[in-house]
Amino acid sequence: KSTYTIAVLPGDGIGPEIVAEAVKVLNFVAERTGITLEIKYGRIGGIAIDTDGVPLPEETVATCKAADAVLLGAVGGPKWDQNPGHLRPETGLLGIRKQLGLFANVRPATMHPTLVAASSLKPEVVSGVDLVVVRELTGGIYFGEKKRYTTEDGREAAVDQCIYHEDEIERILRVAFELARKRQKRVVSVDKANVLESSRLWRKVAERIGAEYPDVELSHQLVDSCAMQLVRAPKQFDVIVTENMFGDILSDQAAMLTGSIGMLASASLADGSFGLYEPVHGSAPDIAGQGIANPLATILSAAMMLRLSLGLDEAANAVEGAVWAVLEAGHRTGDIAEDRSNAIGTIKMGELVLAEL
Amino acid sequence: KSTYTIAVLPGDGIGPEIVAEAVKVLNFVAERTGITLEIKYGRIGGIAIDTDGVPLPEETVATCKAADAVLLGAVGGPKWDQNPGHLRPETGLLGIRKQLGLFANVRPATMHPTLVAASSLKPEVVSGVDLVVVRELTGGIYFGEKKRYTTEDGREAAVDQCIYHEDEIERILRVAFELARKRQKRVVSVDKANVLESSRLWRKVAERIGAEYPDVELSHQLVDSCAMQLVRAPKQFDVIVTENMFGDILSDQAAMLTGSIGMLASASLADGSFGLYEPVHGSAPDIAGQGIANPLATILSAAMMLRLSLGLDEAANAVEGAVWAVLEAGHRTGDIAEDRSNAIGTIKMGELVLAEL
Ligand SMILES: CC(C)[C@H](C(=O)O)[C@@H](O)C(=O)O
Ligand SMILES: CC(C)[C@H](C(=O)O)[C@@H](O)C(=O)O
Repeated sequence: KSTYTIAVLPGDGIGPEIVAEAVKVLNFVAERTGITLEIKYGRIGGIAIDTDGVPLPEETVATCKAADAVLLGAVGGPKWDQNPGHLRPETGLLGIRKQLGLFANVRPATMHPTLVAASSLKPEVVSGVDLVVVRELTGGIYFGEKKRYTTEDGREAAVDQCIYHEDEIERILRVAFELARKRQKRVVSVDKANVLESSRLWRKVAERIGAEYPDVELSHQLVDSCAMQLVRAPKQFDVIVTENMFGDILSDQAAMLTGSIGMLASASLADGSFGLYEPVHGSAPDIAGQGIANPLATILSAAMMLRLSLGLDEAANAVEGAVWAVLEAGHRTGDIAEDRSNAIGTIKMGELVLAEL
Repeated sequence: KSTYTIAVLPGDGIGPEIVAEAVKVLNFVAERTGITLEIKYGRIGGIAIDTDGVPLPEETVATCKAADAVLLGAVGGPKWDQNPGHLRPETGLLGIRKQLGLFANVRPATMHPTLVAASSLKPEVVSGVDLVVVRELTGGIYFGEKKRYTTEDGREAAVDQCIYHEDEIERILRVAFELARKRQKRVVSVDKANVLESSRLWRKVAERIGAEYPDVELSHQLVDSCAMQLVRAPKQFDVIVTENMFGDILSDQAAMLTGSIGMLASASLADGSFGLYEPVHGSAPDIAGQGIANPLATILSAAMMLRLSLGLDEAANAVEGAVWAVLEAGHRTGDIAEDRSNAIGTIKMGELVLAEL
């Protein structure tokens, strides 16, 4: 295959700015490797609410379904924060995950040597951190039944159901074990099996799948212990796999350990090679439109796309190598600069990566 | 009132050792202040499973109900880890919370100046941290309906229900606001209102109760953001209030920020002045019986009991002051010692606190 279609959803806030730089990188790589990339733009989040009246227009879903991969900027902003649920940007994000079957969220948290100072943790605790959180993304309490009602005695009540089926648990665990095989071969499965029934099923399935991967070491941690261990000694982790809600919390905590959330990429994968790629950070409405946002997390997300959806390992390595080279040369956007007066802008950072490539 | 009954549940692992030191402190305080303490011992956790066949014997519940306050060591250990749910030590803990109506878990995470080096975070990030996590303890997904079943197409499934009523949310928020009034007057209410119905109800109730406390500043954080902010800048927090599951994770994360979990106390409060007091750390079966466990978190829990259940503020301050004085004099148990070869044992640490008193 030499022609690929990429759906690009810039979204809100800094989304359009950072996505523009990543698209330049993708186009450059395509030219260099002789493949053809067809880029199709779509709307999601606040911009879609404003333009189409819904956070996830059907047209966008169709564009994504017809593509080989999706690149997303970020969604959300204060403008839509007071909207009712179905008209909120995040609802678009949850919708696209479900509709595209993106069940596996893969988030590396890697401490790059030149950025150790940016962390709030001691250098000796974080240098060398290289972990991945694999989060189940289309099940659990996020998508279980929700209810609001008033009891007979007049009290308002709300219910969220957390539900998991064994096949949902099985497929996310396989993603984690396969990934661990290419890494340090250690999986920590995180649950709350001492309290939750869904966690007890999770642990049982983890044991069963783990037996199919005798070369990978499996251990279990309770979610509260894991939150502690991430603070105390994050280097102990290789691959962490967990359910949707715990993964939301732990992957953000793990990201912040590095201190450079503007550097972190993520992939949300479906069966097969299809995936959606986006930076871990949000839409940063406070700095939108100023040309100062860090595009590197989005560029690194594009690199993940090249590797995981397009099978272009070499190109992916080249992009990642270019990013590290630019950092090693001392270039910084404001979010990761120790001295902000020397910080460069979004476009300049994109150009430096391209030049390095 | 000059006679108080204290139920003491030493539990498993290091529980009996650390509780013994705290009881000595309580008895000393009683003598000094001229009150009479009746100490009644009870079994909970693994020791109760072994002796009574259940993790929470009715006799223990009765002893606690007849008391003015409860002091608990810790429960659990590898011996009972493979037991079925109803025969696990944690089930005793969950049971006593529910049966005694202990809906408010209050956990201070304070960075004592002499212990800053113990933290995995940079000194400038953690020194001065002084926050309290107020966790709802008898509702939410912990106590909602649990189900395990097989679907028509033969897949195993598990369900946990997260349910909250507005009065449950209201009373825990009042605990947080009242506490904030005696502190820096700032409450951060943590939820996942962009996804969960129970969080939307939570936020609505928080707004309503917040309006009754115009002197206290209320803000909302999403649980994933809060996990990040606790790593990035923990000093921003005064009082954090949240539901049961999020509180389990965030309070452990907050505790570990200080690096000295062997120092942290907790209170689990019911309506009125009744409460159960226990150290944040667990039963540490690996060091049980060696006389090296740190009794200070339990002694500080006893101080919380003096203040919150017995109304003996002065005595509470004296106990806390004695603990800090002993630390400032350089005495350390192994868990908080920079040089373990100088570490002192459990009994010695208890004696030093008594001597200081
Ligand atoms: C915006 C929100 C619904 C989303 C989530 O909770 O999954 C976000 O926090 C994330 O982690 O991608
Ligand atoms: C032992 C366990 C059931 C308990 C909880 O999750 O509440 C513990 O982690 C705690 O925080 O006291």
